[in-house]
Amino acid sequence: MILTPEPVLSVLDNGNVRCVEVWGRGDAGEMECGIVEAARQSTQGGFRGWEPGVDDNGKSHKGDASLLRYMFEHDHATPFEFAGLVIEVTAPLFVVGQWNRHRVLSINQASGRYGPLPDRWYMPTLERVMSGAQPTANKQAAGLRPLSATNAMRYRQRLARRCEDFARDYAEDNDAGVPNELARLGMPQNWYTYLRYSSNLRGWLSWLTLRLDRHAQWEHRQYAETVAFNIIAKHFPRTWNLFLDRNARGSR
Amino acid sequence: MILTPEPVLSVLDNGNVRCVEVWGRGDAGEMECGIVEAARQSTQGGFRGWEPGVDDNGKSHKGDASLLRYMFEHDHATPFEFAGLVIEVTAPLFVVGQWNRHRVLSINQASGRYGPLPDRWYMPTLERVMSGAQPTANKQAAGLRPLSATNAMRYRQRLARRCEDFARDYAEDNDAGVPNELARLGMPQNWYTYLRYSSNLRGWLSWLTLRLDRHAQWEHRQYAETVAFNIIAKHFPRTWNLFLDRNARGSR
Amino acid sequence: MILTPEPVLSVLDNGNVRCVEVWGRGDAGEMECGIVEAARQSTQGGFRGWEPGVDDNGKSHKGDASLLRYMFEHDHATPFEFAGLVIEVTAPLFVVGQWNRHRVLSINQASGRYGPLPDRWYMPTLERVMSGAQPTANKQAAGLRPLSATNAMRYRQRLARRCEDFARDYAEDNDAGVPNELARLGMPQNWYTYLRYSSNLRGWLSWLTLRLDRHAQWEHRQYAETVAFNIIAKHFPRTWNLFLDRNARGSR
Amino acid sequence: MILTPEPVLSVLDNGNVRCVEVWGRGDAGEMECGIVEAARQSTQGGFRGWEPGVDDNGKSHKGDASLLRYMFEHDHATPFEFAGLVIEVTAPLFVVGQWNRHRVLSINQASGRYGPLPDRWYMPTLERVMSGAQPTANKQAAGLRPLSATNAMRYRQRLARRCEDFARDYAEDNDAGVPNELARLGMPQNWYTYLRYSSNLRGWLSWLTLRLDRHAQWEHRQYAETVAFNIIAKHFPRTWNLFLDRNARGSR
Repeated sequence: MILTPEPVLSVLDNGNVRCVEVWGRGDAGEMECGIVEAARQSTQGGFRGWEPGVDDNGKSHKGDASLLRYMFEHDHATPFEFAGLVIEVTAPLFVVGQWNRHRVLSINQASGRYGPLPDRWYMPTLERVMSGAQPTANKQAAGLRPLSATNAMRYRQRLARRCEDFARDYAEDNDAGVPNELARLGMPQNWYTYLRYSSNLRGWLSWLTLRLDRHAQWEHRQYAETVAFNIIAKHFPRTWNLFLDRNARGSR
Repeated sequence: MILTPEPVLSVLDNGNVRCVEVWGRGDAGEMECGIVEAARQSTQGGFRGWEPGVDDNGKSHKGDASLLRYMFEHDHATPFEFAGLVIEVTAPLFVVGQWNRHRVLSINQASGRYGPLPDRWYMPTLERVMSGAQPTANKQAAGLRPLSATNAMRYRQRLARRCEDFARDYAEDNDAGVPNELARLGMPQNWYTYLRYSSNLRGWLSWLTLRLDRHAQWEHRQYAETVAFNIIAKHFPRTWNLFLDRNARGSR
Repeated sequence: MILTPEPVLSVLDNGNVRCVEVWGRGDAGEMECGIVEAARQSTQGGFRGWEPGVDDNGKSHKGDASLLRYMFEHDHATPFEFAGLVIEVTAPLFVVGQWNRHRVLSINQASGRYGPLPDRWYMPTLERVMSGAQPTANKQAAGLRPLSATNAMRYRQRLARRCEDFARDYAEDNDAGVPNELARLGMPQNWYTYLRYSSNLRGWLSWLTLRLDRHAQWEHRQYAETVAFNIIAKHFPRTWNLFLDRNARGSR
Repeated sequence: MILTPEPVLSVLDNGNVRCVEVWGRGDAGEMECGIVEAARQSTQGGFRGWEPGVDDNGKSHKGDASLLRYMFEHDHATPFEFAGLVIEVTAPLFVVGQWNRHRVLSINQASGRYGPLPDRWYMPTLERVMSGAQPTANKQAAGLRPLSATNAMRYRQRLARRCEDFARDYAEDNDAGVPNELARLGMPQNWYTYLRYSSNLRGWLSWLTLRLDRHAQWEHRQYAETVAFNIIAKHFPRTWNLFLDRNARGSR
């Protein structure tokens, strides 16, 4: 239960992400305790407190921050299925096409069949267009020749005109009785759509591992960073720190 | 977040089930609203209230109880992935062996490798033994000949003695340094084990469909009925009523 | 192993489907026997022949066509996971966006990031545009007002021009060094892409159940019908007949 | 299609594993080519031959052994879902209880409800009992004190007697009309059961990663090693070598 409404976090020019609901409190009632309690099933115990201390039998223990680290570092992944997160997203179709490929996610998406999508599209900045074109280690994802500012601007102008034209025609076609499911056929892939994703924390970490990677498409990475730094880090701070530590060590 | 601790619900002679955590409140903040809100992504709307009414634009609507029914009856299953449930269970190994086969569940289970399981076993009542032996429509699951009370009692006495003997030997073997993972080899399948299950509501309904069925093993059915009538019905009352309605119509 | 190459089956104006590989022969070596053999694990037996007969112990049996029917009609679904199918597909992006949502499928798809997609797009026929607009029971999926032939033709002309324009600009942008992953942003959703899907037979039947339905989008249904009538029916004829029988009875 | 029947591979004292069916030939018709062809969807090409060479356009290439290595080492895992394996297994209940936890596997198992399981059980050797008890790095999985040969022998004698007694009582109870599903309650966990598993290659590699690990229970590891060295290595030799290389580098 989230008592304070979660903020709408802007992403790209017209997109956003918002945390709807989190779980993972377990019996102890504090976020991430559900992960520890699930892990403790193997020894039939419960949450002992994050810090080192003494248990009810007077026996000292290293604290559950230590247990959480052990599980994370040794790929004991199932306890991380005992916490989770629902988010609401506004993102361009080409990002959603990649995002929906993660089969650990539950998805409910605005349908282009049942109603028109609003006139809202993504326009990459000139910097983004230019920088994406620079040769990089990952030649596959980048153009192979230098892109001139003139050509980059031409690309942006055409894209903008294409979107405006489509928006106008789409409205006319819909008014004229062309079925929504066909009127959308010419819709560019930078159109924004609306959806909710739900998954357990293990699923979210798997998505983050792939989409925070520097080879992920920059636009998708903006969503991954927003979810990571503003939602996961807030609600699952201990797990998030372990994730950061592992990436810093480059062990993946 | 569950403010009042959930009760430990007895199942069989020494087993139990307890609800640890539920989710599915969405923005509206009431359980099951998250399901409706996920479904509304397709038309970019939110929760409108369960009963018929008038929306913010003065337009009358049928109410979201009606939408929930429509989704359930037309197998629009993905919105039901936006709510869920964690439970803690004490159940015999032979029940858990069946239960763990449901791949939609997340599982963390007491390990017979890392520590001894307590001396706690399931003993079927004489009535259970006798009634299970009656010829039924499902001949596969039942004995084919009449079982005498004498033979049923003999079965129970032997099972009891087997459990007591094993408990004594298991303790001795563990003391003597036989590894836990081997000491347990002789453990009968009616021994109780401990675990947590987590799944979204769609996953739980799929489990209930199979395990509330009259062909499911009676002992497993006791767990399904406890989860259904005491936990699902309490936290997801509207979905539960739709489930009951469908089963009453025998459409499955 | 497919000894005769499987034909490329045309779908829509420029799409197609082709069977790459099938499995499910089991020990008996004939397609669909693997399903029966998996089911027989529960009684530790093997394939007995499809027709009624006498087994090695002189005991008569009803034949495994009968067992297959029993499993199918009683939703004993796991044996149907012991056969499967890989297909190669050329389909428009808007169909693939729906298709990829089926999480039981394994997917490898042409990437719009790593190379330009060829100039190949889907143009709905005038009949398709007009008929889709007729009011139907499913008002959600159809336009709500009569569509004139003039307006339908206007829609098609604009869509054709939009595709031609995009193809020209896309080539120019790619030549100019705009990264592929951005050059594609204006790509209409009727552009064809290329992919392979793999799943076990249970997964394919689940997809067919949803996409052969009359409420599925017509274009997606053309792919489902091609896979069903030309690939499933050919390689899994017994299972396919059971599927047809169930649908004819309307039990779903 | 397997032209030569695959051998029954012995595991433990009374268990075994047998390869039933493999897939992953793709269009090229040779095992593992289906993996490469799936990966090539992203660039709309096919299999080029394992070794470096020149393609149809006179362009030289590094060979697909190189592509396979690239995918494996960079965790491009989805192509490995385009090959797979069905096996038949005889294994003790305590191994199967762990094995069935891998949710990527499809399972059909002999049922203890529908018929008696044969009198076939696993007896660990004296060496196994003694060596398992030695203190190891993984103290959790081992006894903490030295185990005397006398005590190890006592454990084995009791286990043997327990199995013999149960076998006799089980037969009598079944004859007397005690339902199978109850007669099995006292069955020790070292009883053998029968099953088939199916999964794609990605799923099998995930299982191997966990169960070839030195922390996996020794008995389960015997099954993993048999599948790995005798089945995966035979039918997927290139992938298997990549797996070995990665493990040798200890990068996991």
